[in-house]
Amino acid sequence: MASVDNALQAVDGALDANLARLFDFLRIPSISTDPAHKEACQRAADWVAGELRALGLAVDVHPTGGHPVVLGRTDTGAARRVLFYGHYDVQPVDPLDLWDAAPFEPHFGATPDGRRTIVARGAADDKGQVLTFLDALRAFKATTGGFPVDVTVLLEGEEECGSPHLPAFLAAHAGDLSADLALVCDTGMWDAKTPSITTSLRGILHTEITVTGADRDLHSGLFGGAARNPIHVLAKIIADAHDDTGRVAIPGFYDEVVELPEEVRARWASLGMTAETFLKPIGLSVSAGERDRQVIEQIQSRPTFEVNGIYGGYTGAGTKTIIASSATAKISFRLVADQDPAKIRDAFEAFVKARIPADCTVTFHETDGSRAFLVPPDSPDLARAASALEAEWGLKPVTIGSGGSIPIVGQFKRLLGVDTLLIGFGLDDDRVHSPNEKYDLSSFHKGTRSWVRILDALA
Amino acid sequence: MASVDNALQAVDGALDANLARLFDFLRIPSISTDPAHKEACQRAADWVAGELRALGLAVDVHPTGGHPVVLGRTDTGAARRVLFYGHYDVQPVDPLDLWDAAPFEPHFGATPDGRRTIVARGAADDKGQVLTFLDALRAFKATTGGFPVDVTVLLEGEEECGSPHLPAFLAAHAGDLSADLALVCDTGMWDAKTPSITTSLRGILHTEITVTGADRDLHSGLFGGAARNPIHVLAKIIADAHDDTGRVAIPGFYDEVVELPEEVRARWASLGMTAETFLKPIGLSVSAGERDRQVIEQIQSRPTFEVNGIYGGYTGAGTKTIIASSATAKISFRLVADQDPAKIRDAFEAFVKARIPADCTVTFHETDGSRAFLVPPDSPDLARAASALEAEWGLKPVTIGSGGSIPIVGQFKRLLGVDTLLIGFGLDDDRVHSPNEKYDLSSFHKGTRSWVRILDALA
Repeated sequence: MASVDNALQAVDGALDANLARLFDFLRIPSISTDPAHKEACQRAADWVAGELRALGLAVDVHPTGGHPVVLGRTDTGAARRVLFYGHYDVQPVDPLDLWDAAPFEPHFGATPDGRRTIVARGAADDKGQVLTFLDALRAFKATTGGFPVDVTVLLEGEEECGSPHLPAFLAAHAGDLSADLALVCDTGMWDAKTPSITTSLRGILHTEITVTGADRDLHSGLFGGAARNPIHVLAKIIADAHDDTGRVAIPGFYDEVVELPEEVRARWASLGMTAETFLKPIGLSVSAGERDRQVIEQIQSRPTFEVNGIYGGYTGAGTKTIIASSATAKISFRLVADQDPAKIRDAFEAFVKARIPADCTVTFHETDGSRAFLVPPDSPDLARAASALEAEWGLKPVTIGSGGSIPIVGQFKRLLGVDTLLIGFGLDDDRVHSPNEKYDLSSFHKGTRSWVRILDALA
Repeated sequence: MASVDNALQAVDGALDANLARLFDFLRIPSISTDPAHKEACQRAADWVAGELRALGLAVDVHPTGGHPVVLGRTDTGAARRVLFYGHYDVQPVDPLDLWDAAPFEPHFGATPDGRRTIVARGAADDKGQVLTFLDALRAFKATTGGFPVDVTVLLEGEEECGSPHLPAFLAAHAGDLSADLALVCDTGMWDAKTPSITTSLRGILHTEITVTGADRDLHSGLFGGAARNPIHVLAKIIADAHDDTGRVAIPGFYDEVVELPEEVRARWASLGMTAETFLKPIGLSVSAGERDRQVIEQIQSRPTFEVNGIYGGYTGAGTKTIIASSATAKISFRLVADQDPAKIRDAFEAFVKARIPADCTVTFHETDGSRAFLVPPDSPDLARAASALEAEWGLKPVTIGSGGSIPIVGQFKRLLGVDTLLIGFGLDDDRVHSPNEKYDLSSFHKGTRSWVRILDALA
């Protein structure tokens, strides 16, 4: 226990130095999606590789078809090994004129209610969060000369553009990446005082459908009333996809969905999230989801059908009286429990085809998907991490699902056979992906302290 | 009768000269919607003004807020006066790479079945058709020194961009425009051998609706399942707009629609137009319209609801998992009989508002409309024009409605109190508004001869 206390004290004493190091990291404009920032991404990779080497890890910077993957590891023969994942790349900064200061010149700020913040692109997503983990390692290194567990650190540079090269990297390096548990620091807290562990993620299925009618755009005066309008056909498919109770009406859609254990449902209900509190900040107030479900279920443990985009016909200014030849919708499903993306895709395609008139056609493009992910509620590592967080924050962490989909977690499970705990210190007001992104100073400081406690607890 | 025969002979003898003049007109790239072609539009206006002066008309080229209106007239004290309307502007030419030759370098071509054609942008719409009328005047002028009737010729340069300045011009010059009958040459024949007079037009109502939900685009993982998706709301409105029999399901929509007289229905049935014959050339085969109605009714005497364009959310390449803040549809109704655009607009707005969730909003933009138009079936001028066409083509003309909407016709009726006969010589395969637009040589030659006979008959 003494080693934990010493390491926590070291974190407190090193705060200014750790912040200076974070500011150095934040000054590198590693926007992965923009080819003009390729050199900056390489620089960020080299910077984190240097930090890992300084901590005593053996490090390789692996080239990929895009930006490098940085992989560092210790091999001290410790009883257990954790695999830590984060990313050194950041989102683009446009619209630049909505920033109060230059996005890559980090500075301190404050929230309206007085919390101190670090403001810069990447402060929360994910550079600040990555350094909470590295600075926890640093504190152990400074006070004990080593770490409670062996660590493998995997930092990629393409998270913000879909991680196109990561699955192949994981498959090729599966041996180097084996671990007892994976830790991902890219999520948030329940609120500024309450820590959280994300133990489930919804899966996802993307698809895109184009309905085609006539072989050209038609004059709506000359043909209107007889010719099929593909926008109408597409609208009917979308309208039919939900019934009047908000359930997805695709046959078989819920076959592999399981009900929440009563205990979980009760715990979630006790969190007090209502449609009004959840939706008010975005200008809504009425849940559009399945009737008779809590909002937290709707967004975390229930599957969805959403049209993410639609277009067809004339979309410019003014009017053009045409019947379009085709109309397209981009669609995604969020999947839960045992829903299989391939099976859902087949069910949806059958549902669509049943609604295509005899003389129209439909094409499906860009289908890909990943299953939902769930850490078993009785996982001993989950209990250890939860106790460690409670010791730091003074409140039991909320263990919840996330409605989002983080494909890396599924890949860890599928390719490496390892479960993941998602623990992060972001807050709802961090403006991730938006102008004036920030990370609370408390998230950074107590986040680092949290990892000290968690690493000790996992040993 | 001798004067008609002489004039017809003059048309035959002048064919080469008339074609040369048409080619000159076609070489002027008078694309009205493109500001870069403003000077070309002025040049086209001046060119037709010169032609009218050469025919002995008193001509003014009236500036407007856009392109000029050319107005010419004779005042010989003839017993009757006709008002002829056409336009000197043309559609844009893109996509240019689908043209087999430069669009403003007219040349002769042929259809697969051997009909000779004139190929150029504007050949059919409307330069070739305008010159059929002017060349008929020319034949009378050459053989008799004058015309059988007094004529007013109104040629505008903004037909292809919605005639924004024409209503004000008509209102301001109503006195100069008074006539016994208006003639519009901007329509087509029933087929290459059968002439046609269009005696009814559907009216039109344009509207555009935007449904707005959250005050920003949302992450579909974090909010999907609870947040309202405006694309779904819009799709439901569109799907609800028709019932399962193809009828428009907006309450009150059919209140002012009248059934065809049995005689007209029988005559239309005898024309032999089927869903298959009508739709096959555009790659369709099944009528989408009201069940148990003839196709010709569906497109001419029945009203419609069509979505002309739709957009919302992410429409770029690949995927973006958002729930859009808003979605928009551009909608037009074709109106018949006594349907009042204002009343239909109100009924539609009520129909939409009943489908907007409590926390969403809807806005309606750009609403404008015009009523349907119908020439009385017992009009003596209709009978005169029909006999003249029969004499030229050897077949009784088909007198039908058009599903399209030509607002000028309604304005002539409302502002000038004058009925319009729409007589044109275009064919279904003219590729109007498309690459490789053409006009049959026979349309041009026999069209000119037709006007000689019609002008004589109307005298």
